Amino acid sequence: MVIFSEFKFENMERIDFKPGTMIYPLPAVMVSCGTSREEYNIITIAWTGTINSSPPMCYISVRPERHSYDIIKKAGAFVINLSTENMARQTDWCGCRSGNKFDKWKEMGLTPIPATKVNAPMIAEAPVCIECRVQDVVELGSHHMFIAQVVNVSVDPKYMDENTGKFDLAGANPLVYNHGAYYKLGQKIGKFGFSVEKKRNKKKRK
Amino acid sequence: MVIFSEFKFENMERIDFKPGTMIYPLPAVMVSCGTSREEYNIITIAWTGTINSSPPMCYISVRPERHSYDIIKKAGAFVINLSTENMARQTDWCGCRSGNKFDKWKEMGLTPIPATKVNAPMIAEAPVCIECRVQDVVELGSHHMFIAQVVNVSVDPKYMDENTGKFDLAGANPLVYNHGAYYKLGQKIGKFGFSVEKKRNKKKRK
Repeated sequence: MVIFSEFKFENMERIDFKPGTMIYPLPAVMVSCGTSREEYNIITIAWTGTINSSPPMCYISVRPERHSYDIIKKAGAFVINLSTENMARQTDWCGCRSGNKFDKWKEMGLTPIPATKVNAPMIAEAPVCIECRVQDVVELGSHHMFIAQVVNVSVDPKYMDENTGKFDLAGANPLVYNHGAYYKLGQKIGKFGFSVEKKRNKKKRK
Repeated sequence: MVIFSEFKFENMERIDFKPGTMIYPLPAVMVSCGTSREEYNIITIAWTGTINSSPPMCYISVRPERHSYDIIKKAGAFVINLSTENMARQTDWCGCRSGNKFDKWKEMGLTPIPATKVNAPMIAEAPVCIECRVQDVVELGSHHMFIAQVVNVSVDPKYMDENTGKFDLAGANPLVYNHGAYYKLGQKIGKFGFSVEKKRNKKKRK
């Protein structure tokens, strides 16, 4: 390995990789879909995120050859279920196996419950279930992007913080996907805006 | 707080939130843009992700009133710079302040270097710089989504693992953004596919 200690940072060379998918860390979510128990399926996805705040909108990108693709396209709906470190094995397994061959719910001991607003199941064990209505499908290449409106967010009440009255997502130990591997969420560094917070607000609140 | 220990999980009630942006954990990237030193700017973004594997494509969603919006739209290019836990303060600050009032590079001690393939600066201090060419701008609501092709990925050679010859993104301690706060990346749980790995592959390799 080349030792760079003799260089100043400005002189450090960089390496060009070929174009690739290097945006990380990402969530590893379990997307549930289907309009009947026989059809219900789960697909694990990292190509997901928020694309608009108001109205809340998100996307998932899915390969058309995946078993869930036609199900989601036909139903025009899916649920994004956030995953936790305790669900890492289930998350990984649902990303490696096909609903063509397995009833993933049964195999992984996951419980489908009806979503409130869309025609798709939610995973009862997930801390957060985001109900999505498909608005557009954009054919990009290997993946098609489902652009969706978030129409409801259903959370597990056990993660409500009784002191703040807020939902404590960090307390659910959400699963992190980083460059081909799953990680736990680490130590908190600071809240959004910490770098511009005035000193009087930095005092610890009771 | 209600105690649920007496219920079986299947009977547990859930709470419906109003629709919102709840997909986490996410990256908190610094997007750099501009075609001249005077115009160079940095905007911190969590509404970003991969939307296609082949060809590699990604997006950033930006409010049109942000200083960087017109710069990116005019140049048709931007760079996604992954951030690290050591860059948390710079990342947060660049998300709270406007390039209208500050030269963020100077204020934060960040070094602009020319991107290889696109007309935009990269942040020399970032472990990974993803060069993006804008392909489409989708006006969604509060945010417009820049859909882009990844045309080059430039990495800091100090994160190359000399044993594997691979880039070690976890070793760069990438910053995680989760529900309004920044976190470190935690402990590794397993590689993609660990749940279906055969036992003979589980032995530690030299």
